[in-house]
Amino acid sequence: MSKKIVLLGATGSIGVQTADIIREHKEEFTLVGFSAGKNMELTKQFLKEFMPEIVCVQSEDDAKALKVEFPAVSIVFGSQGLIETATYEADILVNAVIGSVGLEPTLEAIKQGRIIAIANKETLVTAGHLVMESAKRHGATILPVDSEHSALFQSLNGEKREQASRLILTASGGSFRDRTRAELQNVTVQDALNHPNWSMGSKITIDSATMVNKGLEVIEAHILFDFDYKDINVLMHRESIIHSMVEFHDTSVMAQLGTPDMRVPIQYALTYPERLPRPEAKRLNLAEIGKLHFQEMDYERFRALKLAFDAGKAGGTMTTVLNAANEQAVAMFLSEEIQFLQIEELIERAMDKHEVISTPDLETILHVDSETRKTVANMIK
Amino acid sequence: MSKKIVLLGATGSIGVQTADIIREHKEEFTLVGFSAGKNMELTKQFLKEFMPEIVCVQSEDDAKALKVEFPAVSIVFGSQGLIETATYEADILVNAVIGSVGLEPTLEAIKQGRIIAIANKETLVTAGHLVMESAKRHGATILPVDSEHSALFQSLNGEKREQASRLILTASGGSFRDRTRAELQNVTVQDALNHPNWSMGSKITIDSATMVNKGLEVIEAHILFDFDYKDINVLMHRESIIHSMVEFHDTSVMAQLGTPDMRVPIQYALTYPERLPRPEAKRLNLAEIGKLHFQEMDYERFRALKLAFDAGKAGGTMTTVLNAANEQAVAMFLSEEIQFLQIEELIERAMDKHEVISTPDLETILHVDSETRKTVANMIK
Repeated sequence: MSKKIVLLGATGSIGVQTADIIREHKEEFTLVGFSAGKNMELTKQFLKEFMPEIVCVQSEDDAKALKVEFPAVSIVFGSQGLIETATYEADILVNAVIGSVGLEPTLEAIKQGRIIAIANKETLVTAGHLVMESAKRHGATILPVDSEHSALFQSLNGEKREQASRLILTASGGSFRDRTRAELQNVTVQDALNHPNWSMGSKITIDSATMVNKGLEVIEAHILFDFDYKDINVLMHRESIIHSMVEFHDTSVMAQLGTPDMRVPIQYALTYPERLPRPEAKRLNLAEIGKLHFQEMDYERFRALKLAFDAGKAGGTMTTVLNAANEQAVAMFLSEEIQFLQIEELIERAMDKHEVISTPDLETILHVDSETRKTVANMIK
Repeated sequence: MSKKIVLLGATGSIGVQTADIIREHKEEFTLVGFSAGKNMELTKQFLKEFMPEIVCVQSEDDAKALKVEFPAVSIVFGSQGLIETATYEADILVNAVIGSVGLEPTLEAIKQGRIIAIANKETLVTAGHLVMESAKRHGATILPVDSEHSALFQSLNGEKREQASRLILTASGGSFRDRTRAELQNVTVQDALNHPNWSMGSKITIDSATMVNKGLEVIEAHILFDFDYKDINVLMHRESIIHSMVEFHDTSVMAQLGTPDMRVPIQYALTYPERLPRPEAKRLNLAEIGKLHFQEMDYERFRALKLAFDAGKAGGTMTTVLNAANEQAVAMFLSEEIQFLQIEELIERAMDKHEVISTPDLETILHVDSETRKTVANMIK
């Protein structure tokens, strides 16, 4: 029987690749709903191709225009529309929106006991304890989509959590891996948007260049798999072939490998616990690759990753601050208001100013999130 | 509750390391019986340390001497004694004998529906179809001990066999990895007994240098996991850190990694599906290792591996011939009757002469085995 999918963030990088998977397996999946931002061209294309029952866009104007063209489809908009789409009857919700805007729709879908494939790491970073607690209470399942977390999840498959001793997240090092801090001083937005292994959206590409992305992944791993920060290691691995590893207490290490293709972990989240064939996809050829490189992570060089560990260990609202400060700073970098290295500087300053509130409720989180954005925006004025 | 272990081949390399594991976990395991060859010193030491109920040695004279010293223990000898020991009441039989002498005790233990941890690859190579069929009929469980097969087994853990598309066995290349065929012409026994990554017995070290060992492993993988030979690949990987991999039909590859330490897969076979801690063992540090190398296998250079694939594809008694010819040739090399490269030459000649009998019974296998040994012994006369 075909699984009904709702996809939030359909026109982003993960969204488009999720659509690829649904297209590759028409018998297995039906896209019953999706949300998009402002890309109306792709939104219309997906509407025609997948004939969903519900679609959410950002603005009321776009929604009105779509209603004229697609009268049979329920067209909604804005944050209320996003929640309506997220809770629309389906087997799996794929949350691939960017930023903490994905939080409330996720929490609402959790209340419906849904299976949620989560690519929206900011949701877990900003309010992970609420998400996981609520998922437990409502019998919802949270499945990772990120390649690293999918690798950890696959490595833990068939194993006992209490027999795993350590998570080893691999990091390609981003586009500026081989530059010194001094060389980072004057990098441009254009420089930063060029990632060596993965083709992604601009927010995550910048996060990858700053290593904030790896930091968010560390926090996400802590939330999803319940490992202490001391038992989460980051290993520099430039080829991104080993997507991540789990060490067990008998010293055995399980790893998941593959060519860098996000469609593999996306599909795994949609098919778990099964695997579906991808006959057209490129298979891993290690002999062709020849060498895999590994290197100790340099926390002086990659200060943002250090900040993420600090935020995670501080706990409570500190990860909310890390995430909100980063979202604000990245937006400011992309609009050329600040320099590249100021991203981590502004995050650090926001964290320094913040007094941690432990186990915050949703209201507190949303308040800290918006206050942090304001604080960071004002730092350069 | 403590698991009762019977260990065949206790004084060999795998046997001694199995004893290490039992010693490390006294609460979990009790050695109730073991077999040894001619090493009486170690046999007595194990008798004193583990106080087993039954012990088998090779010769009647040694058995008589041991009876005087250990009157409370049942001391048996020879091939009949080996069967008695193999079928002695226990939870797990570890078969770590060298060569096809391990076949009949294995088949007898299978009839008792035992869990058999098998390090004795010759048994599977020479009569795999009989072993697996009988195991199925009698509800016996065959668990791999070899590091490669344990890695495959662990990579298949929690997965569906029919969703796995390919086995990738890694090969260090043995002690002569970097020599050309011309340079192999005059290598001595001493040269050949020096393996770069693993410390093992002399038969398996020679097999590793000729790559016959990897060939036996390919056949063993075919038998244990039921993959076509075309879906079993061998990948040169000099560091022996990735112990082997399984590719699934979604292109995801699962791998098991670790420092080269046979005690990890031995312990896994004894504890499966659980893992026990090994707090004193060396943990994998990929940053310290720095690089992992991979290379296409060269079947011209490693002709014995090609012969093993040929024998496997021919099926029936051909793998028996491969194994028996190899055992005979290795013995002749170790006693300096033949040159190193003659090992594979004699195997090839034995295979060329043999007319395959498909689905042979035990009697046929034993007959082919002894005939092959004689044929090979006569080849240099």
